[in-house]
Amino acid sequence: MIDGHGDDLFHFASKIKINFSTNIPQSVDHSGLLTHLAKAGAIFKNYPEPEPRSVEQKLAMLHDVDAGNVIVTNGATEAIYLLAHAHKDGKSAIIVPTFREYQDACRVHNHSVQFITSLDEIEDTHSMVWLCNPNNPTGQVYEKERLLTVIDNHPATVFIVDQAYSAFSVKDVLSITDIMIRKNVVMLHSLTKQFVVPGLRIGYAVGPEEILNRLRSLRMPWSVNSIAIEAALYLLENSSSYVFDAALLHNQANRLSDEMRGLGIVVNDTDCNFLLARLPFGTSARLKSWLIQHYGILIRDASNFERLTARHFRVAAQTSQENITLIKALKEWISSFQ
Amino acid sequence: MIDGHGDDLFHFASKIKINFSTNIPQSVDHSGLLTHLAKAGAIFKNYPEPEPRSVEQKLAMLHDVDAGNVIVTNGATEAIYLLAHAHKDGKSAIIVPTFREYQDACRVHNHSVQFITSLDEIEDTHSMVWLCNPNNPTGQVYEKERLLTVIDNHPATVFIVDQAYSAFSVKDVLSITDIMIRKNVVMLHSLTKQFVVPGLRIGYAVGPEEILNRLRSLRMPWSVNSIAIEAALYLLENSSSYVFDAALLHNQANRLSDEMRGLGIVVNDTDCNFLLARLPFGTSARLKSWLIQHYGILIRDASNFERLTARHFRVAAQTSQENITLIKALKEWISSFQ
Repeated sequence: MIDGHGDDLFHFASKIKINFSTNIPQSVDHSGLLTHLAKAGAIFKNYPEPEPRSVEQKLAMLHDVDAGNVIVTNGATEAIYLLAHAHKDGKSAIIVPTFREYQDACRVHNHSVQFITSLDEIEDTHSMVWLCNPNNPTGQVYEKERLLTVIDNHPATVFIVDQAYSAFSVKDVLSITDIMIRKNVVMLHSLTKQFVVPGLRIGYAVGPEEILNRLRSLRMPWSVNSIAIEAALYLLENSSSYVFDAALLHNQANRLSDEMRGLGIVVNDTDCNFLLARLPFGTSARLKSWLIQHYGILIRDASNFERLTARHFRVAAQTSQENITLIKALKEWISSFQ
Repeated sequence: MIDGHGDDLFHFASKIKINFSTNIPQSVDHSGLLTHLAKAGAIFKNYPEPEPRSVEQKLAMLHDVDAGNVIVTNGATEAIYLLAHAHKDGKSAIIVPTFREYQDACRVHNHSVQFITSLDEIEDTHSMVWLCNPNNPTGQVYEKERLLTVIDNHPATVFIVDQAYSAFSVKDVLSITDIMIRKNVVMLHSLTKQFVVPGLRIGYAVGPEEILNRLRSLRMPWSVNSIAIEAALYLLENSSSYVFDAALLHNQANRLSDEMRGLGIVVNDTDCNFLLARLPFGTSARLKSWLIQHYGILIRDASNFERLTARHFRVAAQTSQENITLIKALKEWISSFQ
């Protein structure tokens, strides 16, 4: 859904000083990538590869799988839409609250959709199950052995496990081996989060060749542009410059949680760098406007996630100083009610 | 179809000195755009607009239509797939030989497809008609009044008129007014050809709001990346630096034709900068390999266009000097048979 998203920085760009609305740390040094792209010059003068096979081969090598087990897409979003298309008219279960695109892709491809809230509700009649791990917006990671058991107990159901945020997780997510030894699970991933390049639109899926071949037969050519391909090859080659300290970010998120709880805000436990919170009064929409106006801070109004309310919002831990500013601002907003 | 295309420069990049395989002139100065993008810096650190509305608004202003009458897509290709999706299970007529994607988009969305070779074969039972104007690969432009009459004679049929190459046409193509006063025609366009940026993937459609709204309801978010949006806004603002002399290019294409005909090659009359040719013997595939090996010249083997043969190939006029080199090379190849 085009308007169902969070990172709406583009609406407020000039007013924003700190962006907590994204679930990605914002302090990252992109100078190497910028220099590389400047050197590459007018690469947009020629068509990109119809399918970004060069990036698929690189990822296959990094993950030690065959290139047939990797499909690189225009963000993980294109993979989501292709998966829904490949299983059109299917019966999908989506574990909510979660990323909005599973539901929209299912609608576009005529699935009947059942929203569920735990692994226990999955049935053999579900042709697909969609889940996000760590989950957006809650930051929670599924207990790995339990998730694998459920996957194995429903061999005719295709599980889409979106691990876009795995770089920020302090708990074990599914490994490539967990995926590759099974026939009914596709992992989604993205360069967006790990490399802080959401504007480039590079995602990928790893899974059984039979499923990915169906996606290839449905995809349009040239969906990933030249610059995204060039950047992806550079980033994968230079990934050592983009390592996040997940434990540190998790600690900072926990500190944010503690402070927020101290202000009477209800906060979910999180397993990564972002967290879902619920205001004791007021609405997230009003808090969001106030924070933009008074502090140049952008948060994610989470009220448009399935099953959440007008009081829910999401923030990702940023630098310590920025986190302190957020707490100060929240304190001021809350005390204005008293 | 992922492998059904021409501009496969990426396969041979290091060997190619002159690229005749694309239908776009290659000599263009992109320094302004490169400087602009370098100044823009790490714009990929944030999500792009979910839909590229800033570019839609700019195009709407330039074309003097409402923003609701323009949809900006990941190349015209995304618009083609969305149109086929919006009319899924339909009955499509495609005037061939032509750009391969109409047929592939129709296949992916379960159309029954009839290949026709002229406007005379269109019937009221066709839910959609797809045509390219000027046509790729023939370079021919439909006689405008005749085309409009056919469109008006089939009011229940949606006509998709792809004018991606209109900047290179010496004949009148459909105008925005021709499109806007009708309810059954959608024009496709692209920045690819006019601005020589096929690697960026920016296309658009202009047409009735009711049809475009259906496309918007089916599209995925963020399909056009940040850099493509930034570049599109720059290019549209600076279009005066990217004006082609269509008459000059057409003259050069005609001169190429004359020379090729003198070598016994059959050449279609063209209304723009590229042309379709047929060898008197041998195959285009073999000619292509030979040209790469001996001259670093890339041509478009056109044998995979519907209704064409192993002897067909397509070239676009490049600089005079480059055109002379092509003729010299063709002469050498042909005389090697004698």
